[in-house]
Amino acid sequence: MTTTAQSPAPTAGLPATMRANILKGQGDMAMATLPLPQLDADQVLVQVAAVGVCGSDVHYYEHGRIGPYVVDHPLILGHELSGRIAAVGSAVDPARIGQRVAVEPQRPCRKCRQCKAGRYNLCPDIKFYATPPVDGAFAEYVTIQSDFAYDVPDSVSDEAAALIEPLSVGLWACERAEIRPGSRVLIAGAGPIGIIAAQAARAFGATEIYISDIAEDRLAFALEHGATHALNARTDSAEGLDVDAFIDASGAPQAVRSGIKAVAPAGRVILVGLGADDVELPVSYIQNREIWLSGVFRYTNTWPLAIQLLADGKVDLDVLVTGKFALSESEEALKAGKQAGQLKAVVYPGR
Amino acid sequence: MTTTAQSPAPTAGLPATMRANILKGQGDMAMATLPLPQLDADQVLVQVAAVGVCGSDVHYYEHGRIGPYVVDHPLILGHELSGRIAAVGSAVDPARIGQRVAVEPQRPCRKCRQCKAGRYNLCPDIKFYATPPVDGAFAEYVTIQSDFAYDVPDSVSDEAAALIEPLSVGLWACERAEIRPGSRVLIAGAGPIGIIAAQAARAFGATEIYISDIAEDRLAFALEHGATHALNARTDSAEGLDVDAFIDASGAPQAVRSGIKAVAPAGRVILVGLGADDVELPVSYIQNREIWLSGVFRYTNTWPLAIQLLADGKVDLDVLVTGKFALSESEEALKAGKQAGQLKAVVYPGR
Amino acid sequence: MTTTAQSPAPTAGLPATMRANILKGQGDMAMATLPLPQLDADQVLVQVAAVGVCGSDVHYYEHGRIGPYVVDHPLILGHELSGRIAAVGSAVDPARIGQRVAVEPQRPCRKCRQCKAGRYNLCPDIKFYATPPVDGAFAEYVTIQSDFAYDVPDSVSDEAAALIEPLSVGLWACERAEIRPGSRVLIAGAGPIGIIAAQAARAFGATEIYISDIAEDRLAFALEHGATHALNARTDSAEGLDVDAFIDASGAPQAVRSGIKAVAPAGRVILVGLGADDVELPVSYIQNREIWLSGVFRYTNTWPLAIQLLADGKVDLDVLVTGKFALSESEEALKAGKQAGQLKAVVYPGR
Amino acid sequence: MTTTAQSPAPTAGLPATMRANILKGQGDMAMATLPLPQLDADQVLVQVAAVGVCGSDVHYYEHGRIGPYVVDHPLILGHELSGRIAAVGSAVDPARIGQRVAVEPQRPCRKCRQCKAGRYNLCPDIKFYATPPVDGAFAEYVTIQSDFAYDVPDSVSDEAAALIEPLSVGLWACERAEIRPGSRVLIAGAGPIGIIAAQAARAFGATEIYISDIAEDRLAFALEHGATHALNARTDSAEGLDVDAFIDASGAPQAVRSGIKAVAPAGRVILVGLGADDVELPVSYIQNREIWLSGVFRYTNTWPLAIQLLADGKVDLDVLVTGKFALSESEEALKAGKQAGQLKAVVYPGR
Repeated sequence: MTTTAQSPAPTAGLPATMRANILKGQGDMAMATLPLPQLDADQVLVQVAAVGVCGSDVHYYEHGRIGPYVVDHPLILGHELSGRIAAVGSAVDPARIGQRVAVEPQRPCRKCRQCKAGRYNLCPDIKFYATPPVDGAFAEYVTIQSDFAYDVPDSVSDEAAALIEPLSVGLWACERAEIRPGSRVLIAGAGPIGIIAAQAARAFGATEIYISDIAEDRLAFALEHGATHALNARTDSAEGLDVDAFIDASGAPQAVRSGIKAVAPAGRVILVGLGADDVELPVSYIQNREIWLSGVFRYTNTWPLAIQLLADGKVDLDVLVTGKFALSESEEALKAGKQAGQLKAVVYPGR
Repeated sequence: MTTTAQSPAPTAGLPATMRANILKGQGDMAMATLPLPQLDADQVLVQVAAVGVCGSDVHYYEHGRIGPYVVDHPLILGHELSGRIAAVGSAVDPARIGQRVAVEPQRPCRKCRQCKAGRYNLCPDIKFYATPPVDGAFAEYVTIQSDFAYDVPDSVSDEAAALIEPLSVGLWACERAEIRPGSRVLIAGAGPIGIIAAQAARAFGATEIYISDIAEDRLAFALEHGATHALNARTDSAEGLDVDAFIDASGAPQAVRSGIKAVAPAGRVILVGLGADDVELPVSYIQNREIWLSGVFRYTNTWPLAIQLLADGKVDLDVLVTGKFALSESEEALKAGKQAGQLKAVVYPGR
Repeated sequence: MTTTAQSPAPTAGLPATMRANILKGQGDMAMATLPLPQLDADQVLVQVAAVGVCGSDVHYYEHGRIGPYVVDHPLILGHELSGRIAAVGSAVDPARIGQRVAVEPQRPCRKCRQCKAGRYNLCPDIKFYATPPVDGAFAEYVTIQSDFAYDVPDSVSDEAAALIEPLSVGLWACERAEIRPGSRVLIAGAGPIGIIAAQAARAFGATEIYISDIAEDRLAFALEHGATHALNARTDSAEGLDVDAFIDASGAPQAVRSGIKAVAPAGRVILVGLGADDVELPVSYIQNREIWLSGVFRYTNTWPLAIQLLADGKVDLDVLVTGKFALSESEEALKAGKQAGQLKAVVYPGR
Repeated sequence: MTTTAQSPAPTAGLPATMRANILKGQGDMAMATLPLPQLDADQVLVQVAAVGVCGSDVHYYEHGRIGPYVVDHPLILGHELSGRIAAVGSAVDPARIGQRVAVEPQRPCRKCRQCKAGRYNLCPDIKFYATPPVDGAFAEYVTIQSDFAYDVPDSVSDEAAALIEPLSVGLWACERAEIRPGSRVLIAGAGPIGIIAAQAARAFGATEIYISDIAEDRLAFALEHGATHALNARTDSAEGLDVDAFIDASGAPQAVRSGIKAVAPAGRVILVGLGADDVELPVSYIQNREIWLSGVFRYTNTWPLAIQLLADGKVDLDVLVTGKFALSESEEALKAGKQAGQLKAVVYPGR
């Protein structure tokens, strides 16, 4: 790659190319050498330190698509990431170079009705990492708008900084669920998002945090790291708990239905887990109790709080990391989540 | 009936008994003479002027039950009513006697968590007219707590004052749907509630009010009395309208599903119509757009606004009245709604 | 005192009279023997265990009035109290007898616009303990509506249960200030309310809690029990802190003014402290930053959360108690707060 | 002016220069010929049709400053404007050329905490027309970001389209005051902003709209164009009205104080008028009633609603125009507002 007029000269010392592990098509990953991504005036170039593997990455790898988003060109996966600023665009303060950052992997248009109302996650023109055709972070370098790269203190590990992305989903779910001091909450699904949601709920002041799953080992882990009560979904019914909020992190229709029936009048249901497009819901129950039901689509303005909570030790993301992989092992990382006892795999592009 | 120590002496001039038309069981209505209802200290005795017939009255008549509420004892139907205060309890200002009033037909406990939070419609111990075992208003007299009998100005007809009850459903739906100036709204179902919801939406400032139905005559009527656009549900799709709010007044699962798909990101869905307990909903659509979905269960604190809107001519309920019946004709009134072109039957207990 | 038809017979074993320490006029306290208070159907009779002394009690004692409320008849002071249910009214479950309770010392009408909207603290007809002509709790027994007597677990001391009343002021201030996880808060005044507000803010998730005062010992205490940063109001300026919320617990006009100038755009100011009726405020600053300013008038629906926080150890009220007095020493208790190092005096009517 | 590399070539047919009427210093206006403003990629060039004169324009003219903003370089005044798109930046759809538009005269950074939360009016780096050193609209052409130039239908006059700016202040005040159907509102000051606020309140559904002023002719005009009741501030007291909201459009301390005392418990006070930096307010009244007090600083996301209301005939801005001036008469326009009976002067840069 040669520097052209369109591509500003990288800071002295930057390489001209980088390694990436790309998804060439369904089930087909391969290492590649690519030019450094071009840096716009308002962007920073981030040397990636750690990337968490998300279920959506796995889904693209296994199925080559998610709904209308099809991997019809090679795509770099990975959208949970931290790193260090290696270069800055012409409109960014050069003092940012060298900062350790957590990256919010989305680029809203900033001009539409949703953006100007403070709901940039709902921007119809948003570009999101690792969603075709936008590349993600299984690579040595990425670019992001400077205001979406947040400084993290040294007390926060690379892994935790990367996992601010799923933490943001949990925080956003709690915010939309209106969790507050004294809230009683039910969370379905004790996978990474369920455990993170439990920790987020605790940080929002919830005092009773029920988590349900069918795997006893996951429940035990959740009880250690955020939940206050565990329910085995095969044997324990949540109905009648009369919780203030139910957060579904399972995507299982049956869990959604029974979780809704655990909600008190005027309570809230937030669907985080992705499952079938259409699900039969207990509509008359929702009506008679005037329950509010919605979902989360990513998040808005969550990184500052997430960093604060991590710095204060109010959430612990490091405990979720159960597998560590070099960039060349990204395919193994994508497969790791299927194994028993695995929660979160992390890829290190620098290794 | 003789006045006993338990039953305070009625105001001089009141009869000892009253006529009522009672539902003795499924499909079995009969006139009866009953003692005047007993008046508690905080109540007023209302001589009923007009009673609107609601779909739930018809349902009790036809099926003898609604969900868990079974007519296992004789029950007086009717919960949309106006009248005149004929007597007052010992703790009520006697100056109220003679006032024309619209009655909010519910008696919350005022002490539970929901009541004290201002959501008395969700009170688990609420008593509601014409819901077993609580009698309703197909009778010459009823009692209600004094603060639930609201003065109406002379410019508001008896019929309109009675129909404040369904108007309240529409107002509450609009409030929960966060209809505001400039809102674009879709309403499914051009029956009485749909038309009332359209008028309520207009009063809340909505500028585009789409109404959908399969009956062209209903659509034409709705366009004259609240809606700005009509959609024939058989031929016109609402999907893609990107409205701020969708209010379902049809109870039809297909209308609910396609209505949801008409809602813009961050929009609201309020389910008013009662249909099946469980309905298949487009959950991923709700999640991806972060749409809020809920229902209405009756209403809270709506009578003052309803009276104001009627007095100001911002809503017109009289146009909904398509049938008028004496008390002894209550059964005909219950059957009237099934006929083409009929919207709202009204029973006059004084006739 | 003999039991009459108007006064239901107390539970067997209750005395006919009780001791109280009454304010006969400005600066004039005296012990008296009074009949047990009469018990309404929906009330409980509480044998008082502990009563906190509030600044308003002291003000009535010293000045004989607060604004329009004049002590023109003998008045029992004290409105921060806990105790044990000794008898119940005819409409209350007798199983409540014997329960340890914290008392919310107010009696709203439950029928007005404010009550029905869930803002019962703003009820124009409310009756509040120790506000003429309503008696308070410097007495062996009091009555309260059953739903305003909240069970407390054994892990909560009598003193802490009594001090739920001032804690409620702090919780209500934080709720109105919209304190949430990550909030940065400034509190002016490190007296009991300021320290309680700091603890409440911490329970709501605030991460930076600045407290300002002119007394170094109070600041030191506040840092140990809720605040994260201390500002000496004589030497340290809060202006420019750009906090999300400012809670004034000082009532000092200068503290209010400089506190407002510490608030970020869209932030909130909650005035808890009582001072002059009229205060010069930096109005253009409020306008240019669209700051919201309000106050708290008592509280609504705070006891359940307060009890939960105490039970979970998230607030610590016992540390505030710096003086303990028998009922006969109530006057000394009223005077105790003036002394250096004193925060909260508690009177024990059973001693 | 010659086109340079930094200044993209204007669309064929555009002149190289334009006329403007500039404020050279306090009380010193002069016509000048200036180069066309440079057009950024995301901007449009608007040929100005009409510019309303605002009190802040007059203040800069008379005093050479507003607070910290000093006219130390020549400045073009005028920030209430409409026009027609004459050219577009490279990132804007050329189809916009020729559109009639109303201009929202602010340029937020879109990247800060406030912008990303949907409160771009509070952006600390915002650039606002006619606020030193940012030029305004007393000129033939201006530039604005494309998404801040809103299409207006032909039914809306140039003058009304320009006056969407002050209408936005009124709409924003009503939104922050939470005006809703049935609200009762007091507005102090029957100048342009007061009358606009009255019309805005009516559009939000307010049913009683009290307006106070000391000028009977202004009150009479206000009654014709938005208000429902008039109060002569010299003789009529507003105290005790118990309105839901008070909007001050007078900036007079006495009006602010007595207006606050007209507000019901839980009501809202919005200070729009600019007056002294510091004002003595009835703080204990605000506390005891838990009134919320704030101000408006410009507006956010109001143009779409304003255009809708104008198109629907729900507000009428043309009636406010009492003086029309050519560009060269801008100084006369600035002086016009001081004369009796004058409400709003409009300057036509094309004349």
